[in-house]
Amino acid sequence: MSAAKTAEGIKVIEMIAEMKEIVSKVKRQGKTIGFVPTMGYLHEGHLTLMRKAAEKTDFVVASIFVNPLQFGVGEDFEDYPRDLERDIRLAESAGVSLMFTPGVNEMYPGGYGTTVDVGNLTDKLCGRSRPGHFRGVTTVVTKLFNIVEPDIAFFGQKDAQQAVVLKKMAADLNMNLEIEVVPIVRETDGLAMSSRNKYLAPEERKAALVLSKGLELARNLVGAGARNTADLKREITNFIIREPRARIDYVEILSFPGLKETENMDGRVIIALAVFIGDTRLIDNMVLEV
Amino acid sequence: MSAAKTAEGIKVIEMIAEMKEIVSKVKRQGKTIGFVPTMGYLHEGHLTLMRKAAEKTDFVVASIFVNPLQFGVGEDFEDYPRDLERDIRLAESAGVSLMFTPGVNEMYPGGYGTTVDVGNLTDKLCGRSRPGHFRGVTTVVTKLFNIVEPDIAFFGQKDAQQAVVLKKMAADLNMNLEIEVVPIVRETDGLAMSSRNKYLAPEERKAALVLSKGLELARNLVGAGARNTADLKREITNFIIREPRARIDYVEILSFPGLKETENMDGRVIIALAVFIGDTRLIDNMVLEV
Repeated sequence: MSAAKTAEGIKVIEMIAEMKEIVSKVKRQGKTIGFVPTMGYLHEGHLTLMRKAAEKTDFVVASIFVNPLQFGVGEDFEDYPRDLERDIRLAESAGVSLMFTPGVNEMYPGGYGTTVDVGNLTDKLCGRSRPGHFRGVTTVVTKLFNIVEPDIAFFGQKDAQQAVVLKKMAADLNMNLEIEVVPIVRETDGLAMSSRNKYLAPEERKAALVLSKGLELARNLVGAGARNTADLKREITNFIIREPRARIDYVEILSFPGLKETENMDGRVIIALAVFIGDTRLIDNMVLEV
Repeated sequence: MSAAKTAEGIKVIEMIAEMKEIVSKVKRQGKTIGFVPTMGYLHEGHLTLMRKAAEKTDFVVASIFVNPLQFGVGEDFEDYPRDLERDIRLAESAGVSLMFTPGVNEMYPGGYGTTVDVGNLTDKLCGRSRPGHFRGVTTVVTKLFNIVEPDIAFFGQKDAQQAVVLKKMAADLNMNLEIEVVPIVRETDGLAMSSRNKYLAPEERKAALVLSKGLELARNLVGAGARNTADLKREITNFIIREPRARIDYVEILSFPGLKETENMDGRVIIALAVFIGDTRLIDNMVLEV
């Protein structure tokens, strides 16, 4: 016997006011809301977040918004890959009921001027390489949280610093939601899933494995007793620079989730990498309990 | 026949978690929440806000929190007048059901690091005289809004720039509430009510009338046809400096609510004053439709 199809199909909404009406109706029905904010061009990492949201909450909202505020000058805002039709089909298959796809003017109308900043955690790693990036993230996520009013919002561990920063923001500002961080989803050969992998030419795609392999090397060295962060960073760096297509942005080992520098690894640490493969900046990370 | 007394008396709560529980219960009962955030030492201006909240919403929450983040170095954070017992009695008489009185560590625990900034509107008037002041206000109010989840929050027109900035913040961040601004409440001789009036010695109390009288002068000049802002500012300035105890911080005439400079008054404008009387900085303002 086949199960009856009860889903009404995914709704796609562009306007904030309409989103608020639907959210308010869903809440009046006593349903919990799960939320997966994305920049689109969905991959298995995003879909894992959506399936997790569908498992944990009654009504799943996703958003696709390529947020200009979190891109720096010369970064890939204009070129960021977009495929809305495909994204909507994929999101629906992963259990999303409502997809929010606002335009830039809907999110930042003329005269827009408010920003949210999380101190301390944002001046290192990607925050140092991409000034203003996390201000853009925390600002847009605050707006999206107010529009969607989720009970639980889901983020990927691939953007580890983003997850730490957003948890801090939610706690500091007493927001009424939980943030759940979902493990990195990888290709079978180890490459962390990312919308930006699309930029990689075939030989770059192979070269991109230095990130996940560099992390595996680090895990093995720590397993064999390595504790000194400077030594370990040097080992990872030496491994990565043997790949001629790779240019290191950073190789960092910090306490987690505090993101403090540490001379010798002790307790929970994150090994975080940002590496350009050709023109494409990729990130990856691993959290270890030492 | 006397009405039966059904009120259970005001509740006073210091902890955020307990506030959130009560708010959540009140919301489940389908009641609307009105909110009046204050720094305490309540006067008739505050009580007017509370009565308005009681008139418009089902459940009135007020807060008393002298917010260190909105005071600058050398300002009166330590000396700001406090009288909690009296405030609670007054708030109860004005229809407040729940008074939130958190400590500084409850609002800003160790490692606190998140701030909210409203651009453009905050670099003039009190924002220029008190750098960081509005960042402190917008940050604490965002936190309080998340804790109290009001349907309507009430602010006084005395702090005109604060009201404009908070409305902009709520709109920019898509917050789920209305902000209602309530007219200035004045002493019978015209002095705008303020907790800081307590600082004034008797002869300073008399001198403080230059603010409201300066605004009245401006209203009369505009009534007689004055339109040039530079001329009008000079007239107000000349009037105020005849008072030896007065030292002008600013005399400004700006468009309202945009707070833009304007050569000739046209449409809605605000005439805003900040004047030190002795060591006490007082503000007052008047909005005119020209």
